[in-house]
Amino acid sequence: MNTFDKQVMHVGEMASGAKLTVPIYTYKCQQDVSTNNVPSVYIQANMHGAEVQGNAVIFQLLELLKYCDIQANITLVPYANPVACNHKNGEYTLGRFDPITGVNWNRMYHFDESAITPFAQLNIESHEDEIKQRFQHLLLSQIEDKLDHNIWGLTTGQRIAYQLQRMAHQADLVLDLHTGPISSKHLYCPEYAQASASLFDIAHTILIPNEFDGAMDEATFCPWWHLQQVYQKLGRHFVMGEGIFAKESFTVELGSQEQIDLAVAHQDALGILSYLQHKGVILKQVQGFRPKNITRYACYLKDYKALYAPMGGMVDYLAEFGKPLPAGEPLARILRMDNYGDGDPLHHVSLDRQVLPILHFASASVNQGTELYKVFSDYFEL
Amino acid sequence: MNTFDKQVMHVGEMASGAKLTVPIYTYKCQQDVSTNNVPSVYIQANMHGAEVQGNAVIFQLLELLKYCDIQANITLVPYANPVACNHKNGEYTLGRFDPITGVNWNRMYHFDESAITPFAQLNIESHEDEIKQRFQHLLLSQIEDKLDHNIWGLTTGQRIAYQLQRMAHQADLVLDLHTGPISSKHLYCPEYAQASASLFDIAHTILIPNEFDGAMDEATFCPWWHLQQVYQKLGRHFVMGEGIFAKESFTVELGSQEQIDLAVAHQDALGILSYLQHKGVILKQVQGFRPKNITRYACYLKDYKALYAPMGGMVDYLAEFGKPLPAGEPLARILRMDNYGDGDPLHHVSLDRQVLPILHFASASVNQGTELYKVFSDYFEL
Amino acid sequence: MNTFDKQVMHVGEMASGAKLTVPIYTYKCQQDVSTNNVPSVYIQANMHGAEVQGNAVIFQLLELLKYCDIQANITLVPYANPVACNHKNGEYTLGRFDPITGVNWNRMYHFDESAITPFAQLNIESHEDEIKQRFQHLLLSQIEDKLDHNIWGLTTGQRIAYQLQRMAHQADLVLDLHTGPISSKHLYCPEYAQASASLFDIAHTILIPNEFDGAMDEATFCPWWHLQQVYQKLGRHFVMGEGIFAKESFTVELGSQEQIDLAVAHQDALGILSYLQHKGVILKQVQGFRPKNITRYACYLKDYKALYAPMGGMVDYLAEFGKPLPAGEPLARILRMDNYGDGDPLHHVSLDRQVLPILHFASASVNQGTELYKVFSDYFEL
Amino acid sequence: MNTFDKQVMHVGEMASGAKLTVPIYTYKCQQDVSTNNVPSVYIQANMHGAEVQGNAVIFQLLELLKYCDIQANITLVPYANPVACNHKNGEYTLGRFDPITGVNWNRMYHFDESAITPFAQLNIESHEDEIKQRFQHLLLSQIEDKLDHNIWGLTTGQRIAYQLQRMAHQADLVLDLHTGPISSKHLYCPEYAQASASLFDIAHTILIPNEFDGAMDEATFCPWWHLQQVYQKLGRHFVMGEGIFAKESFTVELGSQEQIDLAVAHQDALGILSYLQHKGVILKQVQGFRPKNITRYACYLKDYKALYAPMGGMVDYLAEFGKPLPAGEPLARILRMDNYGDGDPLHHVSLDRQVLPILHFASASVNQGTELYKVFSDYFEL
Repeated sequence: MNTFDKQVMHVGEMASGAKLTVPIYTYKCQQDVSTNNVPSVYIQANMHGAEVQGNAVIFQLLELLKYCDIQANITLVPYANPVACNHKNGEYTLGRFDPITGVNWNRMYHFDESAITPFAQLNIESHEDEIKQRFQHLLLSQIEDKLDHNIWGLTTGQRIAYQLQRMAHQADLVLDLHTGPISSKHLYCPEYAQASASLFDIAHTILIPNEFDGAMDEATFCPWWHLQQVYQKLGRHFVMGEGIFAKESFTVELGSQEQIDLAVAHQDALGILSYLQHKGVILKQVQGFRPKNITRYACYLKDYKALYAPMGGMVDYLAEFGKPLPAGEPLARILRMDNYGDGDPLHHVSLDRQVLPILHFASASVNQGTELYKVFSDYFEL
Repeated sequence: MNTFDKQVMHVGEMASGAKLTVPIYTYKCQQDVSTNNVPSVYIQANMHGAEVQGNAVIFQLLELLKYCDIQANITLVPYANPVACNHKNGEYTLGRFDPITGVNWNRMYHFDESAITPFAQLNIESHEDEIKQRFQHLLLSQIEDKLDHNIWGLTTGQRIAYQLQRMAHQADLVLDLHTGPISSKHLYCPEYAQASASLFDIAHTILIPNEFDGAMDEATFCPWWHLQQVYQKLGRHFVMGEGIFAKESFTVELGSQEQIDLAVAHQDALGILSYLQHKGVILKQVQGFRPKNITRYACYLKDYKALYAPMGGMVDYLAEFGKPLPAGEPLARILRMDNYGDGDPLHHVSLDRQVLPILHFASASVNQGTELYKVFSDYFEL
Repeated sequence: MNTFDKQVMHVGEMASGAKLTVPIYTYKCQQDVSTNNVPSVYIQANMHGAEVQGNAVIFQLLELLKYCDIQANITLVPYANPVACNHKNGEYTLGRFDPITGVNWNRMYHFDESAITPFAQLNIESHEDEIKQRFQHLLLSQIEDKLDHNIWGLTTGQRIAYQLQRMAHQADLVLDLHTGPISSKHLYCPEYAQASASLFDIAHTILIPNEFDGAMDEATFCPWWHLQQVYQKLGRHFVMGEGIFAKESFTVELGSQEQIDLAVAHQDALGILSYLQHKGVILKQVQGFRPKNITRYACYLKDYKALYAPMGGMVDYLAEFGKPLPAGEPLARILRMDNYGDGDPLHHVSLDRQVLPILHFASASVNQGTELYKVFSDYFEL
Repeated sequence: MNTFDKQVMHVGEMASGAKLTVPIYTYKCQQDVSTNNVPSVYIQANMHGAEVQGNAVIFQLLELLKYCDIQANITLVPYANPVACNHKNGEYTLGRFDPITGVNWNRMYHFDESAITPFAQLNIESHEDEIKQRFQHLLLSQIEDKLDHNIWGLTTGQRIAYQLQRMAHQADLVLDLHTGPISSKHLYCPEYAQASASLFDIAHTILIPNEFDGAMDEATFCPWWHLQQVYQKLGRHFVMGEGIFAKESFTVELGSQEQIDLAVAHQDALGILSYLQHKGVILKQVQGFRPKNITRYACYLKDYKALYAPMGGMVDYLAEFGKPLPAGEPLARILRMDNYGDGDPLHHVSLDRQVLPILHFASASVNQGTELYKVFSDYFEL
C-alpha cells in the first residue's frame, strides 16, 4: 500500500494571529524519476472558497492511489486557499476573489514573459535535459525572489499563490480543481493539449489560447509554451506537449459550488486516474482506468459566452446543461411581479442561435446585468 | 374573469434616495363581506430576502384565481420586504436578518399583551360582531400609533413590518410564504388550528404554541387567542378558531431558498387553494381543489430540533428529507482533509434516536457550531 | 516584577479545520485569596469583532500590573471571540453578531433563574462562605452541563460564550471591554453598583436594571442579585454589592470601533486600575491610580435612546459627544442630492428635548430606519 | 442666479424590480460654446459606493455656481453609481467593486485603441474643428454601440459606466470625485497636465502615464492623447493639452471614505472652482477663486507604493499623512496579543527610505498581506 507524506505549509495569518495552513500530501517515486522522464504531478483544490468538491476528489484520489502502481512523483493539495475557504459571508462562502480588494484568487500567479528570450538565447545549444532543469530553476528562482525579497511585502493572495506555484512549477502535469456556480462538469484545456481532453470523463471542454491571464493553469504551461515558441524563432524546433515540453495544465470544473458529494468524488477521481494512467503516472493494471464512452463537446474560449440579465428580477432557469438549445428557445424566464397587472410579469430570455448551456448563476435573484448563463455558442464534437 | 386591483406601498429608502416599494394586489368581494362572515385573506411572500419561491406562488395564485368564484376579500403581497430581497451579498441574497443589526426580519411585528384584559373587561357584554370590529380597530390603531407618532423613529424593519401587519390584521386567514435553506416543504401551524394542517399539500407540520415571538403568524393569531383566553377567565366562552375567533395564520415553508420554479409554484398554489376553498374563500366548483392523499407528519415546536456541527469541516449531507432516519444512521459525514494521514478525515454525524430530517444548511462549508440539520425528533402522523 | 501565566483555549474550528484559540493571561495571588476575601478579577476584550481597543488596554494593563502590588487573582482575555475578530467583510470587520444567524455575540451567555429559589431554600441556614462557594459551584456546573452534555451540540457563539463565562463566574469583578461604532467612552453599570461608576475615567454611565438579557455583565451579576432577592424574600438579609455579594460587572465602552491606539489604551488602563485599586485588587502605592476629576453624567437604560433615520440619505453628523444639545438644535443633516432643484436637498434632524449625544452610526450612508445616534434623553450628574 | 437643469437617468434594476437612477444637473451656456471654444465640464461623484464626500462637493458647487458668471456647459452627476452607493454590507458600504464579480467599478469604461490610427489616416488633412467634432462623434458612437447592440447584454457595471462615459466624452474637463479609505486629499493627474495640478488646493499629486487601465480619467483623456501621438507619427503636430487637444481629466481624492462633511465640501468646491476659473469656465470676478498657497508634492505612479502587512494583527497607524517620514521611523505598530509573554506582542513596521504617507487601511484589523499604507516613495515639489 502506498503512503503519502504529509506536510503543513503556513500561508497566512488572520487579525487574531490565527495561522492558516495548507496540508500537502506527497508521494515520492522510489525510482529516480528525473532520469526516467516519468512525469511528476501536481493537483490542488479549493483555490476559490466555495469550490469544495475538489477536496473530496483529492480524498478519493488518496484512497485509490494507495493500491496503484505509481510511477511518478505526486503532490496533492486540498484547501489550497484557506483564506477563501474560511470566508463565510452569511450562510455561503464568498468564493472567487479577495473580499478586500476584489482580485480573483486565481489571477495572482506569476509569469514574466520578458525572461524567456534571454534564457533561450543563452541556452540555444544546451542539451534538452539541461534546458528543462535550468528553465525550471529559473521559474522557481523568480518565485523565490517574489516570496523573499520584497520590501513592500506581498498581498494576501500573492503569498498563497506563489507558494502553490512553487510546487506546481516542479510538476509536468497540473490539475487545478474548481467548480462553477451551478454547473455541469467542464474542462479548461490548452489548445495544444486538445488530445488529452478526451482522457477525462468530462463532456465539455473549453480550449484556451496560450496566453497568460493570471490563472494557475496558464502560469504553469505558458512559460514552456513561450519558451518553445522562442526556440522556434531562434531555429531550434521542439513540439509543445512532447519531450521536455510534455507539460500539461488543466482547470477541472467539477460541477456546482457549495457542495461535497463523496460518491460523485469517487467518480471524479476515476476520471482523473484514467488521464494519469494514460500519461504513465500509474501503470496499467488488469482493470485499469478508462475514459467513459461519452460524447464530448468543445469550443474555443472566444466562443464561451456569458449572457447577462437584461433586467433585474427572479429567474426560473430552464435550459438544461449539456443539451443543445435551439435558437429562440428560452434559457430562462424572469419573474417581475411588480409588473403584474400593468406590464409583463414574465420575460423569456432566448438567443438567436443554438447554444450549449454549461452553467448558470447561483441564485434566482439577479440585478440587471448579472451573468445568467455561460454557454458554448459555437462548438464541435471532440 | 376576476381582476385584482394593484397598489404600490412605499416602505423604505436607500442611501441614494432610491425608494423601495411593495406591490399589493387586492380583490374586493362584490357582496358585503362583513355581513356574511365570509373570510378575508392575506398572503405575503419574500419577507426573508432569499426566500423567493412565494413570489412565484402568488403569481400562480393570481393566474388561478382569475377563474375562481371568489367569496372573500383577498390581499396578495409579493416582495414584502424589498430591503431584504435586494440585499445581495456576493452571488447570494442575505436572507434572514437586517444586515446592520442582525435582527430577524420576521421578528419585528407588534403585539402588546397588556391591552387585552382592559379591552375584554370593557367589552365583556358586547355583541360578538362589535367585539370583532372593536378589537380589530384596537389592533389597527396600535399599529397606526407605531407608524405615526414616534419622535425617535422606526427601524428599517419595523417600518416594513408594521405596514404589512396593518393589512394582515384586517384578514381572518393569513399565510406568510417562506422557505428553508435547503429544505423539504413544511408548515408552521398554531396548535389550535391543527385540523387545518391537513388541508395543505405539505407533508410536515410544526405545531406552535400560542406565544408571541415576533413573527407574522403569531402577530396575527396571538392577540385573538389571548383575547379568547381572557374572556374565558372572565366567564364568557368562545372557541378559538370559530365564529369571530375564526382566525388562522400559517407560515408556509415552500422548500429551498434562492430558487424560483414556476411549475412547482403552480402545485404550491393548488395546495393553498384547497385550503382556501375549504374555508369558503372560493366556492367549490366541479373540479375543485382537494388536498393530496399523502402521509402527513407533525411535531410540537419543542421537538423540532436543530443539530449543530460538532466540528468545522465540509459536509456531505446524507439524510433524505421526510424519510425517517433510524437511530445511529448517519445524517451527514464531515470531511476534514487536514486530518488525512494522521487523524480521522471523515466524521459521521448521527443521533441516538430516530428522527425525521426536514432541512439542512445551505453550504457544505461549516464552522464548528453551524446548524447542520433541523429534524422532527418526536413526531406523529396527522 | 509580576508575571502572568499564559494558556491557550480552543474555542472554534473553521471549515478548513483551522483552530481558533484565545490566549488567557492569569495571575495567581500568592496568598490564599479565598480565606482573605480579596477579590478575583476577570477582564475580557473583543467579544465583538470590530471592537479591538480592549486588546490594547489589556496589553497596557499587563505592562502596568508588572509593577503593582497585586492582592487578587486576575484573568485577562484579549481576542475573546476569534470568530468575530477574524470575520472581515470587505475592508471592515463584521462586528456584533454571528454572520450566519444574526444573533448578537454578546447575547449568548447562560442564566437559569429557575435554579435560584431551590438553591436558597436548601441553603437558607448555610454559612456565608459556604453559600458563596456552593452557589459558584452551581453556576459552574450549569455551564459544564451546557458544554459537555448536549446531544444536539452548541452554536458557534455558545461554545465561545460558555467557555468565557466559566472563567467569569469565578471572579468577583468582571469587566467586558467593548466599543461603540463612532462613540464617546461610556459605561454600562448595574443600578446597585452606581457608586463604582465614578471610579472609572469615563464621563457617561448607563445604569442598567438587574435583568438578564444575555450579555456578559448581566450573566455574571444577575445570578447573585437574584439570589440576594430570594434570600430577602425568605427572610435572610444580604446587601447586594457587599460581603459575599460583592459582585460587580461592567461593560466598558472604550470609544470607537475599528481602531487601536496604544497611547489612549494606556490612559484607559490607568482608569481601570483606579477602579481595581479602590476595590483592593492592587495596594495603594505612593502615586497610586486616582479617578480623574471630570463631570460624570448618568442615565437609566430606559432613557438611553436611539434615534432612527427618518429617510435614506447621506449624513453629516453634527452633534458633539458628551456636550448637552438643546432642544431644536440639529443632531445631523441628511444630504439628498436627488432632491436638489425640485425638493429639499438638506434635511435637519433635531429633537424636541435636550439630549446628551453619546455615539453615532459608523457610516455617512444610511437607509431609512438606520440608527443614527444614541443619546441620553434624561440624565443627571453622578 | 444661474439655474441648472435636472434630469434622471435610469442605470439599473434590482431583483425586486426597483429602478436605480442617477440625477444629472446641467447648465447650458447661453452663448454658442462650440464657436467660442470655451470648455465644457463634466464632474461626477460616488462611483465607488463608500466615497460619498463628492456628493457634498457637488452640492456646494451647485450652490456656488448659482452666482458665478459661467462661460461653459457644465454637467454635474452625484450618486454616479447607485448600485455601489446602496450596497451596505453590515454598517459599512462595500466600496470599490461589484460584489458579485469583484471587478472594480472604476475599471469598466471603454477605450478601443485600434480605432485611432484609421481615424487619423482618414482625417489627416481635416480642419481642427472637424477633427474634434468627428473624433468625439466616433467615441460616442462606440459607446452607443456598446449600449445598444449587444445580444449577450452588458454587465451591471458596464451599463452604468458607458452611460456616464457618454456624458464625459462630450466634455473637455473631467473631474471624477473619489476618496481614499482613511486618507489625505490627493490628485491623480495625467503627466502632460502637470501644470494644472497646482490649480487645486490639494497637496499631493500622482502623475499617471498616458495608458488606459479602465478608469474614467484615462477613458476620457487617453483617446485624445493617442490621437495626438498618431498624428505626430503621421507628421501632423498638435500639442496635448492645447487647442482641440485641451482635454484634461483628473481623479480627485477628497480624503476619507464613509464620511460627509458639508463644511469641508465647501472648501473642496472652492478649490475646484479655482481650477475651473483658470480654465475659463467661470469669469474672474472681483474676489475670484485662487489656489491656496501650500507646498505641493508630486510623484510618478510607479513611485506611489503600497505597503502590505507582514503579519496578521491589529494596527496602530502612526505615520501622519503628508509629513515626510524618515527611513527607519515606524509607519505603524502591529499588536499581537497572542504573542504576549512568549513572543513579540508589538511589531514595528518601517521602511529603508524616506516616504510621504498618503493614506492607510480603513480598519485596525488586518490579515497578513492587507494593504497597510500607500506612500510616495520618491517625490518632488511641484
